[in-house]
Amino acid sequence: MPSPFTAVAIVGTGLVGCGWAVVYALGGARVRLYDADRASLDGALARIQSTLTDMRKAGLIDDVETPLAAITVADGLAAAVDGVDYVQESVFERVDVKTAVAAEIGAAIAPHVVVGSSSSGIPASAFTQAAPNRNRFLIVHPVNPPHLVPVVELVPAPWTDTEIVPWLRERLEACGQVPVEVRREIDGFVLNRLQGALLNEAWALYEEGYASIADIDATVSQGLGLRWAFMGPFETIDLNAPGGVADYAQRLGPLYHAIAQSRTEPRPWSPELIEKVAAERRAALPLPSLPERSAWRDRRLMQLVAHLRSQRRSG
Amino acid sequence: MPSPFTAVAIVGTGLVGCGWAVVYALGGARVRLYDADRASLDGALARIQSTLTDMRKAGLIDDVETPLAAITVADGLAAAVDGVDYVQESVFERVDVKTAVAAEIGAAIAPHVVVGSSSSGIPASAFTQAAPNRNRFLIVHPVNPPHLVPVVELVPAPWTDTEIVPWLRERLEACGQVPVEVRREIDGFVLNRLQGALLNEAWALYEEGYASIADIDATVSQGLGLRWAFMGPFETIDLNAPGGVADYAQRLGPLYHAIAQSRTEPRPWSPELIEKVAAERRAALPLPSLPERSAWRDRRLMQLVAHLRSQRRSG
Repeated sequence: MPSPFTAVAIVGTGLVGCGWAVVYALGGARVRLYDADRASLDGALARIQSTLTDMRKAGLIDDVETPLAAITVADGLAAAVDGVDYVQESVFERVDVKTAVAAEIGAAIAPHVVVGSSSSGIPASAFTQAAPNRNRFLIVHPVNPPHLVPVVELVPAPWTDTEIVPWLRERLEACGQVPVEVRREIDGFVLNRLQGALLNEAWALYEEGYASIADIDATVSQGLGLRWAFMGPFETIDLNAPGGVADYAQRLGPLYHAIAQSRTEPRPWSPELIEKVAAERRAALPLPSLPERSAWRDRRLMQLVAHLRSQRRSG
Repeated sequence: MPSPFTAVAIVGTGLVGCGWAVVYALGGARVRLYDADRASLDGALARIQSTLTDMRKAGLIDDVETPLAAITVADGLAAAVDGVDYVQESVFERVDVKTAVAAEIGAAIAPHVVVGSSSSGIPASAFTQAAPNRNRFLIVHPVNPPHLVPVVELVPAPWTDTEIVPWLRERLEACGQVPVEVRREIDGFVLNRLQGALLNEAWALYEEGYASIADIDATVSQGLGLRWAFMGPFETIDLNAPGGVADYAQRLGPLYHAIAQSRTEPRPWSPELIEKVAAERRAALPLPSLPERSAWRDRRLMQLVAHLRSQRRSG
């Protein structure tokens, strides 16, 4: 059994922070919540209870009370981090905000504590350079919501202590997450670079009139995405040729290189193009229906996660 | 209710052709099989029966006998296409082979018949230019296996009759497939261009040492792929910002453009890189275990499709 966390402080109790609280409480840790915004902090336990209740309804967990009882609201940052082995920071994603919070957290923690930031794009070196104990900080980037989507990117800064990534990997795995290591900082880390590469091609194909938004979406949701829900892109192609990935690469590498060669002058998503894409999406889904569709997505995701977990159990 | 096909000829009874036979028979069409390779043709009905039986076991269909009874083996190409309204060609993907078969099919069909080729990369204009009735040909590209993965790319040649795409879209939908229209020919069509864009980024990140093959795969299979199994990339980002896709594009467009700008000198997948990737995959899955893992993939895919269909029914 991998080692669990003992106690975790959640700094920033928005959607992401509350999702993390659920993950760590279900992983068996004591969890302390802190947010400088008192209103957000006051509503956090109710939001967490509602998430746990939804998860029980979807059959993902049996019991709401035990994890809920492990989570308490702290009276200040110092009280939140007192005695914890890990801090998960999920404040607003802006360099100045993250820099100020990193300085506060760095000054408050004991020197052995690890601090993970939920940043999806800003690397740790951009906001921890001047923080006390900066060698204890790294990026721990979840996909929203972290209690449903297992992957977590671990991205150390150049000054992050090297023992932290393996230490954290073990503990996140004990909480049921799937940590991946991005060995050094790069724009978008791995997840958003993969998503961005596909998105850039999708936007270009739409811009050039090859297909509609709805048809490009269906190509993924009724095609490519079915295999990618349980296999990565390398395993997918490895199983798609009798001789495995080497066989596949020999046959299809030239096609994929030709595709890359046709995209060496990338255009930004222009205001006109954004307007066209938005018009096609708004015709399919009017803006006022967006929250309802997001709730649909969350239900579908919860059911899919329940399905995928049942499949993993049966091998 | 969309119109179904009356009768369909399957030319080429390999894995893809037999999958198509299952699709059309379940869609209510009479299906005739033909393959110039007598051994392949002789084994086709047994392979189709085995597929139908697996689908019944997975709960995807109730009855094996009715679709099976709709499928017969034809004694020659002329007999196969006699009286059909559609021909699905799935022969070996090489220009010379496809050219010869298109000439034969074009000469054998009545002028109103439509001919779809299962080509995944060769456009119809590359092998139908000199075929009789060339205006009746287009690409109808499935994802393997077509009886499980719903998406089908329709790609007309410049000389394809314009009424064919809407005619075919209606009939493929009646068979439960999800047709998408690629309005004009392009290398890799839409599906393999989207896959290729993601693959090229994945290979580059691995080559540059940012992450392992296993971690890049997990980023998709435990992250991005979960949403893409039921939503396309545009809908995903549309639901990921309070103001929809326009809001999202304004905030994240610059990051994705920066990612594209960092990839304007694409390298081919070099022999050395292929060897490294293959070594990492072979350490995870030895070559002799590939067929067993492919069978696992097929089981997982069938269970996932059953799950996705049940979700669509419940809205």
